[in-house]
Amino acid sequence: MRAVDLIRQKRDGGALDRAAIDYFIRGVTDGSLPDYQASALLMAILLRGMSADETAALTDAMVRSGIRVEYPGITGTPVDKHSTGGVGDKTSLILAPLAAACGAYVPMMSGRGLGHTGGTLDKLESIPGFRTGLSLSELRRALSEVGCAMIGQTAEIAPADKKLYALRDVTGTVESIPLICASIMSKKIAEGIGGLVLDVKTGSGAFMKTLPDSRRLAESLVAIGVASGVRTEALITNMEAPLGRTIGNSIEVIECIETLKGRGPRDLEELSVLLAARMLIVAGVERDESAAIGRVNQALQSGAGVEKLRAIIEFQGGDPRVIDRYDRLPSASDRHDVAAKDDGYVTTLAAEDIGRAAVSLGAGRGKLDDVIDHGVGIEVVAPPGTPVRRGDPVLRVHHRAGRGLDEALGLLDRSVKIGGAPQSVQPLVVERVVAGNRRS
Amino acid sequence: MRAVDLIRQKRDGGALDRAAIDYFIRGVTDGSLPDYQASALLMAILLRGMSADETAALTDAMVRSGIRVEYPGITGTPVDKHSTGGVGDKTSLILAPLAAACGAYVPMMSGRGLGHTGGTLDKLESIPGFRTGLSLSELRRALSEVGCAMIGQTAEIAPADKKLYALRDVTGTVESIPLICASIMSKKIAEGIGGLVLDVKTGSGAFMKTLPDSRRLAESLVAIGVASGVRTEALITNMEAPLGRTIGNSIEVIECIETLKGRGPRDLEELSVLLAARMLIVAGVERDESAAIGRVNQALQSGAGVEKLRAIIEFQGGDPRVIDRYDRLPSASDRHDVAAKDDGYVTTLAAEDIGRAAVSLGAGRGKLDDVIDHGVGIEVVAPPGTPVRRGDPVLRVHHRAGRGLDEALGLLDRSVKIGGAPQSVQPLVVERVVAGNRRS
Repeated sequence: MRAVDLIRQKRDGGALDRAAIDYFIRGVTDGSLPDYQASALLMAILLRGMSADETAALTDAMVRSGIRVEYPGITGTPVDKHSTGGVGDKTSLILAPLAAACGAYVPMMSGRGLGHTGGTLDKLESIPGFRTGLSLSELRRALSEVGCAMIGQTAEIAPADKKLYALRDVTGTVESIPLICASIMSKKIAEGIGGLVLDVKTGSGAFMKTLPDSRRLAESLVAIGVASGVRTEALITNMEAPLGRTIGNSIEVIECIETLKGRGPRDLEELSVLLAARMLIVAGVERDESAAIGRVNQALQSGAGVEKLRAIIEFQGGDPRVIDRYDRLPSASDRHDVAAKDDGYVTTLAAEDIGRAAVSLGAGRGKLDDVIDHGVGIEVVAPPGTPVRRGDPVLRVHHRAGRGLDEALGLLDRSVKIGGAPQSVQPLVVERVVAGNRRS
Repeated sequence: MRAVDLIRQKRDGGALDRAAIDYFIRGVTDGSLPDYQASALLMAILLRGMSADETAALTDAMVRSGIRVEYPGITGTPVDKHSTGGVGDKTSLILAPLAAACGAYVPMMSGRGLGHTGGTLDKLESIPGFRTGLSLSELRRALSEVGCAMIGQTAEIAPADKKLYALRDVTGTVESIPLICASIMSKKIAEGIGGLVLDVKTGSGAFMKTLPDSRRLAESLVAIGVASGVRTEALITNMEAPLGRTIGNSIEVIECIETLKGRGPRDLEELSVLLAARMLIVAGVERDESAAIGRVNQALQSGAGVEKLRAIIEFQGGDPRVIDRYDRLPSASDRHDVAAKDDGYVTTLAAEDIGRAAVSLGAGRGKLDDVIDHGVGIEVVAPPGTPVRRGDPVLRVHHRAGRGLDEALGLLDRSVKIGGAPQSVQPLVVERVVAGNRRS
């Protein structure tokens, strides 16, 4: 087999068979395939596409580039959730402890912030001492002892994905549904789960801006999961405005703890509970959605969820006192309010602009080696639908001595729209995609 | 400017402006652009295409990656011919001396064999001592003293093309009309010519198999030449069967000398004379085709052409005695005839199969570092239209102790078709493309 022949085949719109895909991924993993051939093939894949079978074979080859974790110490079905990325999208920190408190096993592997969207690892690392870099044996022990761990991708998990991702980032080959799907699903499958709930964001603040694109992505992800023996389903959820009331790192952690204490904003609590309930179902802990929701709500109201989060933090070396003492989390003490320019109703808070503003304050990375300021962020004072008078605060910026503030305010100013009448708020969950209702 | 942004722009079907193309070619030339980004961009160009303006800008940037040669010692317009590659396509060795004998200045820069097609440099190097690697000052002196030199691409000529070509070869990005055009034309423009005649092959033995594809290529090449101030025109010529009666290296040189002595096959003489005549016209030596043809024929019949070839060989360090003593050229003494399988007429000699057979005998390269055997080759005993009886020789293989013979015979067997009636022979010149009859 010659790499140039595979490239030509895909370039001309042909399909790559399993042997060809294995050759490609083996070459990426062991370094025998030069980057310039890999990048030409990635571009051909982006422009020519891949069939469902090819995407499944690619995912499988990427899983086999490392190990597929097993958990001999537990009896249930490990389950995870993955979000395609949103602004203020912090459900992981709420639903993972809730699902674990209900008896699910949650070996959650997350990523860092990407573009304008935040990352679970960055948020967790605002907790002093919290280690996201557990070893596999620590992960297994966490599952046995706590029922949940929240960690980053380990070296054993889909190493081909790590290399390919770095190459895609610099060769304009990120935005390909088959490549995105294989990247997401190879990591999830390799972490050894039997059930997976996907939160596929749609709207102007999501990577997929339109419902048809989001649906195609959801269907492809679900198909791959099912083909690998993982019970997988997707919720397509709205990402026009930020989720909840905070965008940043420590301020999002505080909002999560508040939500686990029953004092969170409605949209965030509702989506977290629903996703946790679907996790219980795909894990086989509950069979029926209303029973599952009841069980999750019970864990929320009883405080079992927040206690589970405390146990997770403790296991992973973090300071568990943050649950009660938010002043133990980093904060940026400077404030700047973005005020309403008219009387009326907040009709739009454009999530992407707000996400970019948070990045410019230091809550995310512009370049790979930027250091995150966990204390900065943006608070939503007046979410969409709120009546305001000219001069009322709509957003509150938590900044550090003005760093990045000018750029952030430019973005935030245009992100806020005030209208004469309240707009109907779009539903949080747009639709559910399960195996069998694929449309293509 | 960031490379990844250029890649994304082309990937999404956008046009690259002159600054972007300059940035790309500068990065390729000085090595600051990593190969993996160059190859992703090449694949995007191949699949998304380039406009005429982009292709012209790319060619221009590639010309400026090196120098554009000047010839202060001569008064006329330097002129060249380029063929897109054929089997048995040896007109360069005939028309360059003929045009020079008629007063044109011909600084011909040629390439090596590529795929199933032969290369002028490989043929010339079968002449003992012949140096194709002249320096620029030797080239200038050759033009002043002899009127013609036949050399390879020097380091000063379009160095970006050299690097890009090596990368395209291993990344499946050869077959792109804009990339092919920029590669061909950057070298030709940089060699400092004022006139150029293109021989664009069409048919099953050419890289462009169909007339529309060949026409598009011809039109694009002509447009680029004209935009760079080079008087350029193209003949689209037939490449179904090999041109002339020999395919190889030294046997092609012998056929060229024979043609210059007035004893060549009709198709080869006719095309060589026509191309030389067109060269005289674009160089401004003659204004009218029939006068130009008359002048070239005169150079042929008087022996001025063959004497010019002798002078070229002498100037470039080769043994000029080969003109009279063919036994001074390398030869392979073993022979194998491919016989007609039926009574009838030779209807097809598939050029591509015959070209590949010659490569497998050692007349061309399967890999870049293969060493050529200049003595081997294939002789056409019965060209298309010849009546044959079963068992009559159609092709005669010159091989060296059976090396590559089995593979060659497999190809040659299928290349020959015998029919009950002679087929009408297709015209040699299909059409002419000049600036202004571009169709796109």
